[in-house]
Amino acid sequence: MNGAEALVDTLAGHGVEICFANPGTSEMHFLAALENPKMRSVLCLFEGVATGAADGWYRMKHAPACALLHLGPGLANGLANIHNARRAGSGIVNIVGEHASAHLKYDAPLTSDIEGLARPLSHWLRRTDTARSVASDASMAVAAASSRPGQIATLILPGETSWGEAGDPKLIPLTTVAPSAPPSTRVDHIISVLRSGEPTLIILGGRATQGRALALAGSVAASYQCRLATQFFSARVERGTGRVPLERIPYAVPAAVDYLKEFKHIITVETGEPIAFFSYPDKPSRLKQDHCVVHNLVETDEDSVAGLEMLLDGLRGKTALARLQPRSTDAPPQGRLDPISIAKALAAALPENAILVDESLTTGRETLGLTAGAAPHDVLQNMGGSIGFSTPAATGAALACPDRRVFCMVGDGSAMYTIQSLWTQARESLNVTTIIFANNAYQILKNEFASMGVGTPGPQALAMMSIGNPRIDWVSMGKSMGVPSVSISTAEAFHASLLASASEAGPMLIEVQL
Amino acid sequence: MNGAEALVDTLAGHGVEICFANPGTSEMHFLAALENPKMRSVLCLFEGVATGAADGWYRMKHAPACALLHLGPGLANGLANIHNARRAGSGIVNIVGEHASAHLKYDAPLTSDIEGLARPLSHWLRRTDTARSVASDASMAVAAASSRPGQIATLILPGETSWGEAGDPKLIPLTTVAPSAPPSTRVDHIISVLRSGEPTLIILGGRATQGRALALAGSVAASYQCRLATQFFSARVERGTGRVPLERIPYAVPAAVDYLKEFKHIITVETGEPIAFFSYPDKPSRLKQDHCVVHNLVETDEDSVAGLEMLLDGLRGKTALARLQPRSTDAPPQGRLDPISIAKALAAALPENAILVDESLTTGRETLGLTAGAAPHDVLQNMGGSIGFSTPAATGAALACPDRRVFCMVGDGSAMYTIQSLWTQARESLNVTTIIFANNAYQILKNEFASMGVGTPGPQALAMMSIGNPRIDWVSMGKSMGVPSVSISTAEAFHASLLASASEAGPMLIEVQL
Repeated sequence: MNGAEALVDTLAGHGVEICFANPGTSEMHFLAALENPKMRSVLCLFEGVATGAADGWYRMKHAPACALLHLGPGLANGLANIHNARRAGSGIVNIVGEHASAHLKYDAPLTSDIEGLARPLSHWLRRTDTARSVASDASMAVAAASSRPGQIATLILPGETSWGEAGDPKLIPLTTVAPSAPPSTRVDHIISVLRSGEPTLIILGGRATQGRALALAGSVAASYQCRLATQFFSARVERGTGRVPLERIPYAVPAAVDYLKEFKHIITVETGEPIAFFSYPDKPSRLKQDHCVVHNLVETDEDSVAGLEMLLDGLRGKTALARLQPRSTDAPPQGRLDPISIAKALAAALPENAILVDESLTTGRETLGLTAGAAPHDVLQNMGGSIGFSTPAATGAALACPDRRVFCMVGDGSAMYTIQSLWTQARESLNVTTIIFANNAYQILKNEFASMGVGTPGPQALAMMSIGNPRIDWVSMGKSMGVPSVSISTAEAFHASLLASASEAGPMLIEVQL
Repeated sequence: MNGAEALVDTLAGHGVEICFANPGTSEMHFLAALENPKMRSVLCLFEGVATGAADGWYRMKHAPACALLHLGPGLANGLANIHNARRAGSGIVNIVGEHASAHLKYDAPLTSDIEGLARPLSHWLRRTDTARSVASDASMAVAAASSRPGQIATLILPGETSWGEAGDPKLIPLTTVAPSAPPSTRVDHIISVLRSGEPTLIILGGRATQGRALALAGSVAASYQCRLATQFFSARVERGTGRVPLERIPYAVPAAVDYLKEFKHIITVETGEPIAFFSYPDKPSRLKQDHCVVHNLVETDEDSVAGLEMLLDGLRGKTALARLQPRSTDAPPQGRLDPISIAKALAAALPENAILVDESLTTGRETLGLTAGAAPHDVLQNMGGSIGFSTPAATGAALACPDRRVFCMVGDGSAMYTIQSLWTQARESLNVTTIIFANNAYQILKNEFASMGVGTPGPQALAMMSIGNPRIDWVSMGKSMGVPSVSISTAEAFHASLLASASEAGPMLIEVQL
């Protein structure tokens, strides 16, 4: 087989099931190799869709996808969502096609320093030497991407390594290291903190917001009488009726400082000390009080289940039952659309096992708490802060979980970065409901302008934060890429359109007129 | 004034008239400073539009624009078109907002290695230390971007350098070095080559395809009886009726080899030896014959006008008149749309002084020669090969030349990378006619698949080169962003819609159904 065939064979052999691709000339042999039935290939019309979809896939599967990118500039187009994935601990195997090595010295137009572009955001980076080393390099890339937390692995494939003879490589089993339990001395220290009775907040991140770790954290909080929260943004939180509810540290610096001021101790699980998202001239970067001490229980590469079990072991059987989220009994809202009625409509409409991808910024993110009493669901958020995360991530999540409905909440400004996602959703008939909050502004920036203390924005600055001239026609936008689309302006219409979207397979777009 | 105000003041003082911006929180002070009436700010909904527009602006103005980008990921989104601009010799001043320096140690979500991301594609790169050094750093950035050829200058502004007190900086005049004439020994050598009478091709690049250099090149070719060509892609060619016509080295390797095989000498002017765009398993990278010698007359940082004048001086007055392009007298075509009728319709419809931005790939680029007899116009092409160049470049060119009509020829696949350009065109009422060649495929890849010798594409590979499922509805796409749009399927309708678009101010989109 040739190198490209060896590559696809190896990736698929290690369980990389899907390739999000935006290929070019240098990837033609890879394209030919995608006939391999063990690899599903999904075409994306922009590279940021491919890498963001790989992030969404990983978050739901806990297994890496592959992103096929065209030389340095193709990689560059995918970097923003690689940044977001990296911050979420999502593993991705990037395959970057490159000119044949002998061609590089001629400095053809698409030549660039691919390693230079990849290095700042890759944990693992390699340029394959020969077709015969493709398989082992690909194995190492998958191993890196499959680490815990997941890593960004970038494999650069010069032309001759794709088309050259690779022999008949054997699949080398991956050596994966299971995450270890935190050391007992550290756990003992945390137990002493919890027993002190002083006000304590446990902040969960990484995998600790899911499954058994989340349930254990609920017991720990109930048993030791401390509070449980997440950072403002989380990679994936399992929430809704019957699950352990988590508080959320506010985004705005004054609100976050206020929220944290009562705590003497913060215990972190697969996350770090809460920090301001941005820096502001007159506001602190650290959100906790000076006297509050931060104790780390579980590092991001350790096992939260083991760590939390050790905390419960410290109680010698006197564990309390976790508080669980009751079902919200609110009737669906009517009338005016605002962040509260929007959240209530969502809470009422979310079907069991929905996936909520949240990049709603001003409209939804502050009121997300109101959806806690919805049917059980997952929430995925933007961990890197680079806008244009949600529509690709929703695409990848829907492919990872074809039996679940994905709701992508996104502001109009944010949606425009990687709007090409809609086309892939239509092409693959994905169960994604894209909810566009159309306030015709970079509204978040108006808030941030005020937070920066810059004063009242002048006409130029205001114009630069308005996207209402022209107003984006979202129904036409959805239609242009084959996604059935509606525009609604009341809470009851929003609720009804959410239900309608969930009742039929395939994508839908809902413009929420604000 | 604060650092942001000093920045805008300095940029504007050095003649940077326009800022293509996609700002975020870290750039709020810059936004406030944009009230400065000497700086026009143009909002882009994706960073690739901003950097590509800066490229288009530079090509028409020969002066840099500024691109305002939001931290590392915002820069990353702009890199592909920065690559294209770099390859075109277009100067850009990138302003990248950054967290305040004191905030960096907390590794907030948007923190990244901005220098690492910028370095591979920046000629000049600096992180400003203090507000008081903003003005001098900005001057150096403009000086770098204004070099010949233009450079990519990237200035990273940590928060405190924007909001801190910058004093009242004086504008330091830029020290710009005029390009020098090539040394006479080199010119004498070229004259001896030209006098040899052996078959010689002069290849023009950079500024040599414009203005007085182009006219001089026409005299040189007529006087020494040699041929004149460009590479397949050029940054900007002045062409059309009454101008010196230039041949074009073909794109496909066999055709290029065939074209070049008769020449014993190649003389390069602001460009290099012709090289294959991509590498293929069984095709050469170098397109000329082994026995053909390449002689460089003018380096990219030298003065082509001076160099060509020196060649004419060698004739001691016996110069011949340049051959000039006659007006095409073809009637507008009728009937079926194909690359030939499309080119003929364009040739008939192009108004005087039009700007043709060409990213048409399979549909237009091979038949572009048929438009040579149109009214005088400029052609801008993608020099870096990263797709998504044309719609932003057309946006920037239209802002640079408000009294000229821009025609942007783009394949449907290519148009999707930076489709957000349409919104800026509508917002600024730009005179851009976007011509979408809708063949519903990455048709170029089908050709490249064959060129790679991979055989017949299987169903998976074919699917990955088709974008017709769903078919993009371009009229809805244009409408969604406020651009009047039509879809046509005959040559006469194409011709009529081109004329209609040119008769009214503001943007228009024409879908050419193929």
